[in-house]
Amino acid sequence: MPGNSFGHAFRYTSWGESHGPAIGCVVDGAPPKIPLVEIDIQQWLDKRRPGQSRFTSQRREPDQVRILSGTFEGLTTGTPISLLIENVDQRAKDYSEVKDLFRPGHADFTYQAKYGIRDYRGGGRASARETACRVAAGAVARKVLGPGVLIRGAMVQMGPHKIDRERWSWQAVAENPFFCPDAGAAKAWEAELDAVRKRGSSLGAVVEIVASGVPAGLGEPVYDKLDADLARAMMSINAVKAVEIGDGFAGAAIPGEAAHDEMRMVDGKPSFLTNRAGGTLGGISTGEDVVVRFAVKPTSSLLIPQRGVNLRGEDVEVVTKGRHDPCVGMRAVPVGEAMMALVLADHMLRQRAQCGA
Amino acid sequence: MPGNSFGHAFRYTSWGESHGPAIGCVVDGAPPKIPLVEIDIQQWLDKRRPGQSRFTSQRREPDQVRILSGTFEGLTTGTPISLLIENVDQRAKDYSEVKDLFRPGHADFTYQAKYGIRDYRGGGRASARETACRVAAGAVARKVLGPGVLIRGAMVQMGPHKIDRERWSWQAVAENPFFCPDAGAAKAWEAELDAVRKRGSSLGAVVEIVASGVPAGLGEPVYDKLDADLARAMMSINAVKAVEIGDGFAGAAIPGEAAHDEMRMVDGKPSFLTNRAGGTLGGISTGEDVVVRFAVKPTSSLLIPQRGVNLRGEDVEVVTKGRHDPCVGMRAVPVGEAMMALVLADHMLRQRAQCGA
Amino acid sequence: MPGNSFGHAFRYTSWGESHGPAIGCVVDGAPPKIPLVEIDIQQWLDKRRPGQSRFTSQRREPDQVRILSGTFEGLTTGTPISLLIENVDQRAKDYSEVKDLFRPGHADFTYQAKYGIRDYRGGGRASARETACRVAAGAVARKVLGPGVLIRGAMVQMGPHKIDRERWSWQAVAENPFFCPDAGAAKAWEAELDAVRKRGSSLGAVVEIVASGVPAGLGEPVYDKLDADLARAMMSINAVKAVEIGDGFAGAAIPGEAAHDEMRMVDGKPSFLTNRAGGTLGGISTGEDVVVRFAVKPTSSLLIPQRGVNLRGEDVEVVTKGRHDPCVGMRAVPVGEAMMALVLADHMLRQRAQCGA
Amino acid sequence: MPGNSFGHAFRYTSWGESHGPAIGCVVDGAPPKIPLVEIDIQQWLDKRRPGQSRFTSQRREPDQVRILSGTFEGLTTGTPISLLIENVDQRAKDYSEVKDLFRPGHADFTYQAKYGIRDYRGGGRASARETACRVAAGAVARKVLGPGVLIRGAMVQMGPHKIDRERWSWQAVAENPFFCPDAGAAKAWEAELDAVRKRGSSLGAVVEIVASGVPAGLGEPVYDKLDADLARAMMSINAVKAVEIGDGFAGAAIPGEAAHDEMRMVDGKPSFLTNRAGGTLGGISTGEDVVVRFAVKPTSSLLIPQRGVNLRGEDVEVVTKGRHDPCVGMRAVPVGEAMMALVLADHMLRQRAQCGA
Repeated sequence: MPGNSFGHAFRYTSWGESHGPAIGCVVDGAPPKIPLVEIDIQQWLDKRRPGQSRFTSQRREPDQVRILSGTFEGLTTGTPISLLIENVDQRAKDYSEVKDLFRPGHADFTYQAKYGIRDYRGGGRASARETACRVAAGAVARKVLGPGVLIRGAMVQMGPHKIDRERWSWQAVAENPFFCPDAGAAKAWEAELDAVRKRGSSLGAVVEIVASGVPAGLGEPVYDKLDADLARAMMSINAVKAVEIGDGFAGAAIPGEAAHDEMRMVDGKPSFLTNRAGGTLGGISTGEDVVVRFAVKPTSSLLIPQRGVNLRGEDVEVVTKGRHDPCVGMRAVPVGEAMMALVLADHMLRQRAQCGA
Repeated sequence: MPGNSFGHAFRYTSWGESHGPAIGCVVDGAPPKIPLVEIDIQQWLDKRRPGQSRFTSQRREPDQVRILSGTFEGLTTGTPISLLIENVDQRAKDYSEVKDLFRPGHADFTYQAKYGIRDYRGGGRASARETACRVAAGAVARKVLGPGVLIRGAMVQMGPHKIDRERWSWQAVAENPFFCPDAGAAKAWEAELDAVRKRGSSLGAVVEIVASGVPAGLGEPVYDKLDADLARAMMSINAVKAVEIGDGFAGAAIPGEAAHDEMRMVDGKPSFLTNRAGGTLGGISTGEDVVVRFAVKPTSSLLIPQRGVNLRGEDVEVVTKGRHDPCVGMRAVPVGEAMMALVLADHMLRQRAQCGA
Repeated sequence: MPGNSFGHAFRYTSWGESHGPAIGCVVDGAPPKIPLVEIDIQQWLDKRRPGQSRFTSQRREPDQVRILSGTFEGLTTGTPISLLIENVDQRAKDYSEVKDLFRPGHADFTYQAKYGIRDYRGGGRASARETACRVAAGAVARKVLGPGVLIRGAMVQMGPHKIDRERWSWQAVAENPFFCPDAGAAKAWEAELDAVRKRGSSLGAVVEIVASGVPAGLGEPVYDKLDADLARAMMSINAVKAVEIGDGFAGAAIPGEAAHDEMRMVDGKPSFLTNRAGGTLGGISTGEDVVVRFAVKPTSSLLIPQRGVNLRGEDVEVVTKGRHDPCVGMRAVPVGEAMMALVLADHMLRQRAQCGA
Repeated sequence: MPGNSFGHAFRYTSWGESHGPAIGCVVDGAPPKIPLVEIDIQQWLDKRRPGQSRFTSQRREPDQVRILSGTFEGLTTGTPISLLIENVDQRAKDYSEVKDLFRPGHADFTYQAKYGIRDYRGGGRASARETACRVAAGAVARKVLGPGVLIRGAMVQMGPHKIDRERWSWQAVAENPFFCPDAGAAKAWEAELDAVRKRGSSLGAVVEIVASGVPAGLGEPVYDKLDADLARAMMSINAVKAVEIGDGFAGAAIPGEAAHDEMRMVDGKPSFLTNRAGGTLGGISTGEDVVVRFAVKPTSSLLIPQRGVNLRGEDVEVVTKGRHDPCVGMRAVPVGEAMMALVLADHMLRQRAQCGA
C-alpha cells in the first residue's frame, strides 16, 4: 500500500533521497537464467546521467550501479536483485535558505502537509534523482523482454516548439543532446535553450516512447489495461502532467469513420492498416507499436524570482541558485523508456501466468 | 494480479459481461457505520443510464442496483459490500454476424489474441456496460469521502468543438444531455450530434472532472502519486486514450516563470495564487481543486462501412446495426466522476493508515 | 488491504453474511478455455452442505450455486467468474436475545471492538457459512489444477480420539459422515458424538489434507513459501487454531539424522525415500504429497450454560438454543481441501509467470 | 506476486544471499516522525547474531546495520527505509563439493527444480542468514507499535524435552543461551546439546512468542485474520513446520464447555477469564496476550552421513563439515519476535485505514 513499488509479477521497490548516502531499488520476480551484469544496467544509467551537456544539471554523479544480489555467475537466479547507486556529489552546502521554504512548483509544501517532516536537502525523496532507480530497474526489464522488443524514446516538443514529424529519424535522436528525432529542430532548440538558460527560465517538453515487437495479448482488462498501466507509469515520473496513447487528445476531434484502425489480411494474418490506437484495443496490445506521449512541465527551479511562503508563515521571494536543468524533458527520455520496459515486462509475466504464454 | 480490481485500502472488484445474467462488484474496505442504502447508489446509476435522450444508446436497462451484503440496518459494517445489477435488456438476438468478426476500434481482435476465446455478445466484458459497476462503487466512495468533498464532471469538448471556458456554469451541466457547462455550446452540439447520428458516424469528446474540498496530503510518492493513480483510473475507462492534470499538455509550452503556482499567505495559511498544477505537487494533493481531463475516442460502432477481418481470415466490411451512442463521451462523465471518487477514497484511507489522519 | 480476498495470480474475493440475501465470491485470474459449468462446483458444495447427517447443523440450505459471469458456452473466458449462492434458510427468528451478547468462543466481542457495529444474525460475516464460498472458489481452482492433482481430506482426530493411521483407507472416508479414514474409529465416533450432542457439548477435531501429483517447484521464497501460504489458508478457516506440514510439531522431537528425507536415484530421477517434510523444502514443493494438518476448536455454540457479558456491560449466562454442529471439524474437511486447491492453483500460475512452466 | 515482501500497509522487501556482498531490506509505509537510529535496530540484530555461545554457528558476522534512507535527523520521514548489512565472513572456500549436491533436508533440490539455477554458496537465498533482515525490519515495526506493545519470545522445547511451564520466568530467558524460561531445563539442555553437537547430530525446538498490550480490534477477516497472518509469518521462517495459536492442537481435544474463554465484567469492562484462544477470536485481537508457538525442525547440516543425490544423477553420501547450529531453534526466537512485530504493525496501520484508530 505504500507507494514505492511498481509492478505485480515483475515488481521493484525504489528507495533513497537526493542527498542521503545512496539510492537504489530491489527488483523482484525476474525470471531465472537471464544474463545480467552491471554493464547491462550501466549503459542506460549513463544515458540518463546529468552533466553530459551544458543543457543538463551540472551535478557530477558517476551513477555507478552495483548488483548486490540476485545473480550468480552472470545469470539471474530468480531471487530479488538489489541495485545500489551511491550518491557522490551531495555537496555539504548550507541548506538554511531552503530548509523552511515552500517553493512554487516543488513538492516542499505537499510533503510537509502529508508527513509533517521532510528531508529538504536537494528535494529529498521528491528529487528527480529517484529516476535513476527507474532506469536501473528498467534495464533489468529490458533483459526480461529480450531482444525482440525494441523500446525507443524521443523528445518531440520543447517548450512550444514541436518537431516536424515528417523529418523523424531515430538516427538523429542519438546525435543531439535533446534526443530529438528532427535534426533541424534540434539545431534550433540549442540556441533557444541557451537563451532560456541564460535568462534563468526553463521550458517544458513532450516526450514520445515507442515500443516495437510487443506481442498481441498483453494487458489485463479492465483496470490494469496496458494503457492504464502506462498512463500511471508515465504520470508517476517527476514533473509529468499529461499522458496519451496513440492519437490521444487529437483523436477526440476526429470523426468515427476516420478514427479507428481498419484491418485487412496481410501475408495471411489479421493486420491493422494504421496505428491510431497506439498499439492497444480494449486495454490489450494489438501487436502494433505501443506509442505513448507525455508532457513534462518546465523545471521549477528558476533564477527568476517567484513568490513563495515559508514554514513560519511568511511571504518570501524564491530564487534557485546553482545547478539546474533548463529543460528537464530531455532527461525524461531514458526514464520514459524504462517505465515502458517495466510495464511491458510486468504484463508479459502476468500474461504468462494466466494464459500460459 | 488479474486486472478486475481497483484500489488498495478501499478496493473493489468488478465482474460481468454485457449479455450475461448480471453485472456487479464487491467493494471491500469501506469504513464501518457509514449510512448506505440503495438509493445512495441508484441516483448515480440513473445519471449514467443509457436511453435517457436521443443521443445515447437505446438499450433499455433499468440498472437497478441491489446491496447483497456489507450493510446492516442502513449502515456499513466494515465487511464487503456486494452490489448486483441485473441485465434486463440482453435481447436474444442473432449473433452469427458478429461472432467471428474483428471490428475496427473494438476489442474483438485483442481479446481473441489474449484469451483465445471471447463472449462476443454485446462486447462481452469489453462492453461499456462494465462502467455501471464503476459508478456503483464510486457511489460508495463518495459516501466514504463525505460531504466535504464535491466531485463534478463536465464534457468540455465534443468532436473538434471546445466549449468557451469563460461561460462555464455548473448549473448548465445539469440542464443539457451533454453535461456541457457552456449552455451555448450545448445548443450547437445538439444539432451537430443529430447530424452525426443520422449519417451513422460518431464523435469523440473531452471530459473534465473537478474535485473540490480534497485535503492536502493525499497521494503516495513515488509510484502511487495521486496523479499517477488518477491517470490509471481515467485511462482504464473504455475508449479513453489521453489524460491530463491541471494544465497538462498545454503546460509544457509555457515558460517556467509562468507555469507554476506561486504562493502567498492568505488568511494566515499558505495558499496558491493559481491552480495550474491541477491540485497536486510531487504527486500529493495541495488542497486546491483536483482537476483531470481525459479524451474519449469516437464510438467504434458505426453505420458507415469499415474494413475488418474475421476469425476465418477473410477480409470483410463491417457495419454496426442497431443501437449505439453517437458520442459516448457524455456517458463517460458520471464514470469519470466515479473514478475520481474511488481514487480519492482509497488515498484518504491510505493516508490515514500511514499518517493517522 | 481489506481482508476478503485470497491469492495473487489466481485470486478470489468472498462476500456475504449468514442471514443476508446471499453469499458469493468473485474468482479472478482463471485461465481461459477451461470447461466449467455449475455442476463442477455444485458437487463440492454438496459435500460441505449442512443437514446431511444427524451430526451436522440442521440448517436446510440447498446451497445452489449460480455462475453469473466469466464463462461462455461452458468454458472460462479469462474474465472474472462471479458465483452466487442464495441464503434460503435464514429463519425470520427473534434475535433480541443474541443481539447484544458477547458469547464465549464467538467473534461477537471482537467484531464489535473492531467495527463498532455488527450484523449479529447468525454470526453475520463470522459465520461458517462463508466457507461455502471457499468451497465454490476451490472447485474452480481444482479445474485450474487439472486432473493430475488429486486433493483429498480426512478427519484424523475427533476430540481426544485419534485414528489408527495403520488402518487408513481413502475408501472409508467416503463411507462415514466424519470423512474418517479409519472405519473402526468412525464407528466409535458415532456413539461418542451422539452422547456429546445429547449433553449439549461439542468436540474439536484434527483434519488432514493431502495433495498428490503436485509438481516440484511451486512456492515463492521467502515470505510466500508454499507452506507459509498453506498455513495462512488453513488458519483462516473458522475455528482453526493450529496448522502443521508433514511431521509438524512431532518433527521437533526427532534427532536430525532421523528427521530429514534422504534421497536416492529411483528410476533415473532424484527421489525422496520418505516424506517427513510433507512435500516442501525451503518453501518449495518437492513433488511428493503435500500434507497439511489443522486443528479445529470445539464448536462455540453449546447447550451447556457459559459465562458471557453483554453490550450493556452486564454479566450473563449464555446458552445456544437451536441447531448447531456438535463437531464442526467434519465440515472443515471439504473446506480444507478447497483451501489447498486455492493455494496450489495460485502458486501454479505464479510459477508460470516467473519461470515459464 | 514474487515472494520477497511481507505486509501490506507496513511492508518490507528483503534481498540478499548468504555469500553475496550484502543482505538487506526496504521497509515501506512506516509512519513519519518516529525516532529511529541504527542502535534501535542493532540491539535486536545483536540478539540474533551467531557465534555468541558454543551452541550456535561459529560464523563471525558483526551484522552491522546501516540505514541508507528514510530518516532525517533521527526521525522517520514516511519514505522507504533501506537497511543494509554487509556480509563479512563469506569465506572464500572451495564449493566444488556442495555445488552439485542435493542434501537431505536442505532446499538444494527444490531451488534447482524451481529455477533451474541456484547460488549454492552457503545456501544462497535459502540460508537462515536472510532472517537478519526480518529482525532488522522487525525492529522498525517495534518502533511503529510503540512502547505499549511488549513482544517476547522463548524456547519452550528442545528436541523432545519440554520446559515445565510452572517454572516460567521471563527473567530466566535472558540468562541462558537458549532463551529458555525454565532455568532448570536450560541447565539440562546445556549438557544435552553438547552431546548432540559432539556426535554431529542436531535437535529441533518449539518456540513461543507472546505479545502483550495489543489492542482489541486488529486483524482483517476473513482471509487476513490476525492468526492467519501470524501463521504465514511464522511458517515462512526457515525450518519452521508447524504453528499454533493459544491452545492450538491441544485445544482440539478439550470438550466445548472447557475450551472457550468465558467472560465477565471486570473493572467495568468486558474481560476474558482465561486466554485459551491465544488472543484472537474470529481472527481479530481480543486485547489479551497474543500467543503463538511454532516448531523448528532439526538443523539439516549434520556430521552423520546421510543419503543424497547429485545433479549428475548419482547416489552420494552427504556429510556437512564445518560450522553449524546444533539447534537452530534458539536463533529462531528473535526472528519469531520480529515476525510478530511485523504482523502487528501491519494490522495496526490497516485498522487505522479502515476504522480510523
